[in-house]
Amino acid sequence: MGLDDRVRCCPDGLMTDRRHHVKIVDCTIRDGGICNDWRFDDGLVRETFQALRGAGVDLMEIGYQSTPDGDEPRATGPWKHCREEDLARVVEASAMRLACMVDVGRITLRDLRPRAASVIDTIRVACYHHEVDEGLALADRARELGYDVFVNVMAVTTCTPQEVDAFLEKLADADVPNVSVVDSYGAMYPHQLRYLIRKYKNWLRPTQKVGVHLHNNQQTAFANAIAAIDEGADWLDASIFGMGRGAGNVPLELLLMYLDDPRHDVRPILGLVDIYTRLREDLRWGYEVPYAVTGWLNLHPHAAIERMRSGDPNALEFFELLTKSRPRPRHHRGRIEAA
Amino acid sequence: MGLDDRVRCCPDGLMTDRRHHVKIVDCTIRDGGICNDWRFDDGLVRETFQALRGAGVDLMEIGYQSTPDGDEPRATGPWKHCREEDLARVVEASAMRLACMVDVGRITLRDLRPRAASVIDTIRVACYHHEVDEGLALADRARELGYDVFVNVMAVTTCTPQEVDAFLEKLADADVPNVSVVDSYGAMYPHQLRYLIRKYKNWLRPTQKVGVHLHNNQQTAFANAIAAIDEGADWLDASIFGMGRGAGNVPLELLLMYLDDPRHDVRPILGLVDIYTRLREDLRWGYEVPYAVTGWLNLHPHAAIERMRSGDPNALEFFELLTKSRPRPRHHRGRIEAA
Repeated sequence: MGLDDRVRCCPDGLMTDRRHHVKIVDCTIRDGGICNDWRFDDGLVRETFQALRGAGVDLMEIGYQSTPDGDEPRATGPWKHCREEDLARVVEASAMRLACMVDVGRITLRDLRPRAASVIDTIRVACYHHEVDEGLALADRARELGYDVFVNVMAVTTCTPQEVDAFLEKLADADVPNVSVVDSYGAMYPHQLRYLIRKYKNWLRPTQKVGVHLHNNQQTAFANAIAAIDEGADWLDASIFGMGRGAGNVPLELLLMYLDDPRHDVRPILGLVDIYTRLREDLRWGYEVPYAVTGWLNLHPHAAIERMRSGDPNALEFFELLTKSRPRPRHHRGRIEAA
Repeated sequence: MGLDDRVRCCPDGLMTDRRHHVKIVDCTIRDGGICNDWRFDDGLVRETFQALRGAGVDLMEIGYQSTPDGDEPRATGPWKHCREEDLARVVEASAMRLACMVDVGRITLRDLRPRAASVIDTIRVACYHHEVDEGLALADRARELGYDVFVNVMAVTTCTPQEVDAFLEKLADADVPNVSVVDSYGAMYPHQLRYLIRKYKNWLRPTQKVGVHLHNNQQTAFANAIAAIDEGADWLDASIFGMGRGAGNVPLELLLMYLDDPRHDVRPILGLVDIYTRLREDLRWGYEVPYAVTGWLNLHPHAAIERMRSGDPNALEFFELLTKSRPRPRHHRGRIEAA
């Protein structure tokens, strides 16, 4: 009798309706572009679009829209700005939706073009908690222009509970259609993400959807995604082979295999994974100890990224440098916030 | 105000007594040795011993003991056999305990030497569920010789619930001091491991300790470790930089940072991580899609390891090859076993 004739000894208690409920956002080009300054070949972006469409991914986040400053276009690839003529070279009409991210402070309201004049249907606004008012101004403008809208409040692990309450109240009042829990620093463990998803859902209206964007500094991104699905997250961000800043994101191929849903087909993604595997040889996203250290310390990964680029990680020296001047985190022993 | 003056927004509900309860087994040389046929320099094994001791690791699993066959000693390094004269070159008397693993079928009872004649104090018996009787014979002999003993039943994800019941009943009857849940294939998700730890604890006597050995094929090893700690696991296996067969194990440095316990000091491990990072350049353990595919399919990783060694992973072809002749797993939709 082969293995496959056997009943596994690990039944589980997950509610399959939750696994079948979640929608997938791919952010390979947008977040992965942080690794290569968005200098992807058009051919790879086109193949990625086609693979995601074939895989049944719901929404492809294809890059940023931003107001170009003087010399930036020379230094970065087109997916930092996603001009309509660039997008037209790589996408076709399809059932898969298309998003761009806009960062508060990097785009002016007047540079958002009407939905009717774009292949993009969704604008994802990224802001820090102290920029939520500016984020809401961008979100309002994008909705007026006809877009579906997300507000992704970054680095939520650095906020006090009161700060989270404050921005969630604003996002609930503004009735933003989609709000993402964002673990920018890869600082979260599954139980913490579960807690935050409950908190977001408690504050937001029943019609508002909750998304999740995760980083993999401590190798928890995929397990956090499993926890998020179980908590009823509506949207989950992932990227092919986990390509993304620093340690990267939830690997899309792991997520699709886990969901094991007839809506999806992992094979088109697997057909591209070898290309992304080769990209990683140079770009080096994925697990490295400096990323783990910044994740654990709940810090932005920029120091770890610089350290990795220097070619000499020296993990111990890096750890000493970052912990010398600041207390070690005591978040595991933190107080339980009143519900 | 810096980040560190802030209260994190992610309080958690973990019981700290459970985090402070767990003991750590390092298996860098034993499981990592599968990557390089145990050909570690004596100097590195000595440094590893010293770093683990300095880090407050409870038990170092330094290799296998096995009955040498004819030409094997030429092909493999000394940590495949752990002769006493080899051990003497790298370890010193210390509070850290030392273990060797013995595989059923690879060592005869008479080749186990008395505890009093060895620096090793713990024998960890590895067997498949259908070899538990042979495993218990080895365990009994090792106990007679004065050792503390583990029985690690491998690949538990391939067993039926009835098979798990059957071996747990035998292990409870035999009163083996320590029994490990072993996810040899990296097939488990956290909720499945939680379920199995409860099952092991329900079957075993209160005095019997439960250990956990995890593989990282689907990037769940560390999150599974967090879940295991929360379920009250007594022993957790980890390795430096996750070094181990295929996708590797729980990274010890992540575990120590997470535990954040005054019993431990992650710094000696970080001082060695750069060396292990360089070893990985050649030996290539860690996340790769073929490992993820075998993990998801609940299969031994050997086909994935061969595929990676060939230098041409071709993830899609590999997936098609493995799924063509067998049904895709339906374990997520599996029945919930009666308690």
